[in-house]
This record gives sequence, C-alpha cells and structure tokens, in this order.
Amino acid sequence: MYIVQKFGGTSMGSIERITNVARKVIKEIELGNKVVVVASAMSGETNRMVALFNEAVGNFNHTQEILAEYDSIVSTGEQVSCALLAVILTKLGYQARSLTGWQVGFETSCHHGSAIIENIKTDKIEELIKSKIIPIITGFQGFSQITQRQTTIGRGGSDTSAIAIAAALKAKRCDIYTDVDGVYTADPRIVKDARKLNYVGHEEMIEMAASGAKVLEPRSVMIGMAYNLDIQVLSSFEENPHGTILTNDDNIMERRLVTSVTSNKQDVEIKVKGLPNTVDTAAKLFKVLADAQITVDMIINEPRQEEDNINIAFTVSSNDLSRTKSILDTNKEFLRFSVYEVREDVAKISVIGVGMKVNSGIAYTMFAELAKNNIKPLAISTSEIKISVLIEQKYEELAVRSLHETFALGKKS
Amino acid sequence: MYIVQKFGGTSMGSIERITNVARKVIKEIELGNKVVVVASAMSGETNRMVALFNEAVGNFNHTQEILAEYDSIVSTGEQVSCALLAVILTKLGYQARSLTGWQVGFETSCHHGSAIIENIKTDKIEELIKSKIIPIITGFQGFSQITQRQTTIGRGGSDTSAIAIAAALKAKRCDIYTDVDGVYTADPRIVKDARKLNYVGHEEMIEMAASGAKVLEPRSVMIGMAYNLDIQVLSSFEENPHGTILTNDDNIMERRLVTSVTSNKQDVEIKVKGLPNTVDTAAKLFKVLADAQITVDMIINEPRQEEDNINIAFTVSSNDLSRTKSILDTNKEFLRFSVYEVREDVAKISVIGVGMKVNSGIAYTMFAELAKNNIKPLAISTSEIKISVLIEQKYEELAVRSLHETFALGKKS
Repeated sequence: MYIVQKFGGTSMGSIERITNVARKVIKEIELGNKVVVVASAMSGETNRMVALFNEAVGNFNHTQEILAEYDSIVSTGEQVSCALLAVILTKLGYQARSLTGWQVGFETSCHHGSAIIENIKTDKIEELIKSKIIPIITGFQGFSQITQRQTTIGRGGSDTSAIAIAAALKAKRCDIYTDVDGVYTADPRIVKDARKLNYVGHEEMIEMAASGAKVLEPRSVMIGMAYNLDIQVLSSFEENPHGTILTNDDNIMERRLVTSVTSNKQDVEIKVKGLPNTVDTAAKLFKVLADAQITVDMIINEPRQEEDNINIAFTVSSNDLSRTKSILDTNKEFLRFSVYEVREDVAKISVIGVGMKVNSGIAYTMFAELAKNNIKPLAISTSEIKISVLIEQKYEELAVRSLHETFALGKKS
Repeated sequence: MYIVQKFGGTSMGSIERITNVARKVIKEIELGNKVVVVASAMSGETNRMVALFNEAVGNFNHTQEILAEYDSIVSTGEQVSCALLAVILTKLGYQARSLTGWQVGFETSCHHGSAIIENIKTDKIEELIKSKIIPIITGFQGFSQITQRQTTIGRGGSDTSAIAIAAALKAKRCDIYTDVDGVYTADPRIVKDARKLNYVGHEEMIEMAASGAKVLEPRSVMIGMAYNLDIQVLSSFEENPHGTILTNDDNIMERRLVTSVTSNKQDVEIKVKGLPNTVDTAAKLFKVLADAQITVDMIINEPRQEEDNINIAFTVSSNDLSRTKSILDTNKEFLRFSVYEVREDVAKISVIGVGMKVNSGIAYTMFAELAKNNIKPLAISTSEIKISVLIEQKYEELAVRSLHETFALGKKS
C-alpha cells in the first residue's frame, strides 16, 4: 500500500534536518510500504522569495500575469529542497527522484497564486515506485494546462498537495510530519492536562481548524474527508512518533460526546446600529459584505421587532476588519444605518465533537459552566458538531480550562 | 529583426539593477526591434545553490542521477531572476513573460550538468513576440526529452544559451551585456594604452578566449561562428554603450596583421624525462593522458634522436595538474620514464590576428622582440591565426607590453 509522507519547511530547514527526514523515509520503506514523499521549501526560503517579489512589484496591481511570475518565483523553494532530499536518499543507498508540479502531472486551474487542484496524474509516480525509485514531489505547486506555467495552490500549501496526492493514489495513509506531535483536546499552552487524541474525525478536525486549532488547514482535511483518507499528524523531531489519526467521523462517532475545546482571538465583533426594521435589511447588509468576499462568521440579530430600527452584530476575521469598515462606510446610505461599533477584545470559544450529532445537552452544560464563572455569551453559533460562543477576551483561558474540565477531556479521564 | 539581449548575474544582482536591465530592454524595443531577453541568476545565487548541493552530496559520486538533481537545484536561480525582470517590465508598462528551459523548448542531451544543446524551438518565442509580449528566457538551463527533466549546459552557461537562441531565431545580433565594456587589444590592467576593438573575428575571439581573454567562452563564440551571427559584447553599466562586435572573420580580414596580445598563467609545464627513444613513445604518453580526458596544450619534444632516452615536455591546465601527476605515477612502468618535473612559474603569451593567414613575418617579429628583452621561449605552439609562446612567468607583463607596442596596437595607432 502507498504511504504519502509530507515534511514541512521546519523539517527541511537544513541539510542535517533533511538527512533526518531521509531516515524517516527509509524507515517507512523498510516496513514494506510504497513511500511517496511531498516536501515544502526549506524554512525561510519562501519568505525570502516573497520579499524579492514584493520589492519588484511595489504597488503595482497583482494581475494574473504578475501572479504567474509570483508562482514561478516562489515555486523554486520546493524544487531545491526536494532535489536535496533526493540527493541525500541516493547517497544513503536508496534511489530517489525529485519531481516538480509539471513533471509529476499535478494539474491545477490557471488561477495563479491560489490555483484549484484539478487532476493529479499517478502514472509517473506508479512507474517510479515500480522501478524502486522514491518519488520526492514538490508541495504547494502545480501546473496549468491552459497557461503551461507553474501555479501555486495558496492556503494549506504542501499539506493540501500531499493529501490530494494520497487521495489520487488511494493511499493507506497520509502522514503529515510537522513541528507539533498531534491534535490535542485543547491548546496545551492554555490547559496543562490537555490530552493528545489518538483519533479525530475529519469533520471534527475541520471545525477545530476553523475554530483556532492551527494543525491543518480545513481545505486539506476536506480533501481527506471527501476521499475517506486517513491522515496522521505527527512530529518530525521525535524518533518514534505516535501522532493523531484523522479519520472518517463514523469510525469514532460513539466514543465521546466532546472531542476538544478550542479558542481564537482572530475575530472582531462589528455592531451595525439603527438599521431600518424591514424584511430585507439583513439580506442587503450581508450581500454587500459577500460581494467584497468578506466571510462573516457569527451573526446576532437583536430581537426588537416592534421598533423602527434594529441592530445587527456579526464577527469577521481581524484581517478583514479594515476592508469591512471601508465597505460599510461606502454603503452607509444604501444600508441606511446610523453608526457601527467595533469590538476587538473578544474571543471565540468552541466545543467540538461528533458525539453532538446524537447527544443533546452539550449546549446546556456549556452555558451552565460559563454562567457559573460569570462569563456572558456575546454571540452564539452552532453546527451539527460544534457550539461556538463569543466572549470577552479576558475570560478566554478561564473558559477553555473550565470547559475542558467539565467535559472531562483531561489526561486522567 | 530579432535582437537577443543577454544579461549576466552581476547585471541582475538586485531589484535596482534588474530595473536598469528593464530600461535597456525597453530602449531596444523603442528602436523597433523584436527583443528576446536571456538572463542569468542574480549574482551569488548559483554559488549558494552549489554550496547547498555540495553539503548534501558530500563525497558521494556525481552519478547522472545526482547530477540531474544538481541541475534541478541550480536551475532555480534563473527562474527567479527572469520572473523578477518580467514583473518589473510589466510594472513599467511592457507585457513580458518569463520562460524556463522546458517552457520555451530548449532541448538538450540528457548529460546532466554539462548537456549539449540539441534543438531550440522558436514557435513559442515567435508567438509571444507577435502578441507584443517580451519573452524573458532563463539562461544556462534546458530540458531533456529523454529524462523529461531540467538540464544545465555547463561552461559558458547563459552566454551560450543566448547565442544559441539568437542563432535559432536568425537574429540580427546577440548583445551580451556584461561587466566589461568590450574586447581589448590586450588586458588593460597590464597595458595602459590597450584599445577597445570595434570588430573582432569569431575565430580570433575563440583563440583569444582560449589564450586568456575572459570575455566569452570559446564554446559560445563557436556557435556564433557556425551560424554567422554577429555578437556584441558591451557594458550593462553604461548609459549608451558601444561594445565590440564579433563577426565573420572575412569581414575584417585585410584590416590588420595582429588583433591582440593575450596572456595567461593557467598552464603548468610538465617534463617527462628518460623516456625510451622509440617511435611510439609520444603516442603512448598522450594516449594515457587523453584517456583521462586531460587536455594537453603545448608539446615540446627535445630533439636528441641519437640517444637511448628522450624527454617530452607539455603543458596542461593547472586544474588538471594533480590528475596528470596521478596518471603519470600510475603509468610509470607502462611508459618507462625515469622521472617527471613540474614547472608552475610559467606564462603563455599569445599574438592573435586573422591577418596572419595572409601575412608571414609575424613569428619573426614576435621572437625578435622577445629576444631583445632576453625572454627565452620555453615552448611554442601555433594555429593559422595565433602564435603562443611559453615563457617564465616573471616576464609576463614585459612580454605583453612590448609585443603590444611592437605590433602598434595602442590607442594612438
């Protein structure tokens, strides 16, 4: 069976570290697996390339042509690191070959800078494996049949490449070697007895990533979910790492109510006041934001149905704050609001678990625990397997710790 | 008509310098020419890549597979610099596109690290020019149809790429922008009144390059000669440079006897003593050297026909000295010599000019001038348009200056 191993920039950061990576590849081969490697650029290289690009482009528009050159520049980092790994594996007595996006047939759309994966050819990979040559594939990059140029796939980068390649190969597993050793019930920096999870559902992981866990981008886990692929997150700096396996939610549905508690301070709350109390007010507000490609997370519509004016509050990523403000300013007459207020000292606490699908009562337990600590929910949002609450930022750690304990997620349980 | 402009690593050394390059491209376009650009990596980049490769490979053999990875690593430098130039040209209002070896169709043999150019497709270049898009092509690299991988073409690198592309396009001229402003009658650091030449014959330039002039590799000029292509060497740091044009020897045959005086200290003399005085001695000696791919330049066979033993002296590049010594040591019994002596304090002085083809007397003038200065020729070699003399190194500058004056090459003539 195929195993795809993915190594990030920190793992590839020096010749010594790449040699360490080579040993992990060899170990997996010696277990009898067909190993395909996907690697990132040496840490710092992509940033160096981006800095050169930024110096060259200045304030000029990032047109598709400019972004194509950007892709050509930043995609060199993986070309170098993968070739270095191939050299070291060869030196250690294992045939290996580096392959760029165009060489392997990693076909994407022509949206340079953030291309969509369209098709991954596996014939070259299979041919190399049959010849006992280890394919070392550049992460983050692909190639467009339309423009015949290198592309990069944007957020999630090499993780997404590796998981997509594993899916195309119908691999047994995709191992993501990184600088954390797995997925935890909560951030170990906040909760001392946070426990490493052996298994996490794909859907849970997507919710966790969207709620603040920085292990994997939701985009890459979604591919794993779509192709029912097991993804292991594990440390590249441990000798015999046991990480966390992301797998089909059904495999772990009945084991627990709650899997983890996450938090993030990335969001800001914006309250738009004095909007007309008409049926299309909310639709108009969220249309102008959507047109500007601003993602709104939580929405609170204050229920004062009898009055002439209403307030609507919502949260956006702090990265989108200045754009949101300028959109609201521009559309003030169109939306007919009186004023908006921004609140930045907020945190979003999420309780996540596939068990919620079949168990009620989680929300009650959560709100009761917050109330016990005098923490007021400013906004609430839910999905089938997640409840998120916006609170004052100063309560963030208290909320995470007490919820972690209430749901008995700690080590001793 | 097509003009191919080639810019070296120093010219591409920073965003500021690349912007300067962009202005030279624009100037040539505004003159109404179809401009194709070939560029090297930013200065220092290729060395940085080579250092990474060397650290990775250690003492391991440079097999073809290892050299293929080497090519993949070092070819990234041009990919970055060409994309940066395309970005800057676009920003300045001129459509441009960077193209790597595989994108343009620069086909080479599969001899990684020192591939031979096999075929350069021009359809992509012509299509871009028709669409008013400036093609910016990576120098030094190509791609092998057989291995489907990046290759590099070794010595001469980007100059050779540019001249080969110009030849394929039947270009009016290939302009090599570099850090010298042309070809001189002698090294200006040695001869104060050395004169910049407006025209030099291809064949003269090949002899000059082989004799110590470091302007262009003979390999790249040979392509210009084969395709009857004018090559201009000019400074990338001057505002309105007038360089030297390398052209068909016939164009300048009758104008002068001698074009330049060159010197180099790259060679060492090796004298093999006590060889058997048999008819096949020299053949055996030079066969073992040739088998080791050691290039012998000058040969002096001391004429002592009546004795049992003879001495043979020859020169090799100092880069090949240690290999030559080990070959002689290994073959001592086979060649039946008694001892060999190495002399490193030598210099080779060459007088070059197409005029020699039709004028005798040059050799006489040269030796008379050296004799006047008490400089003894240790060895002599000649071609149709060149006479080289090996002398003691301490006389190098004196010999060059006096020959430069004798043949009236200075500024006032």
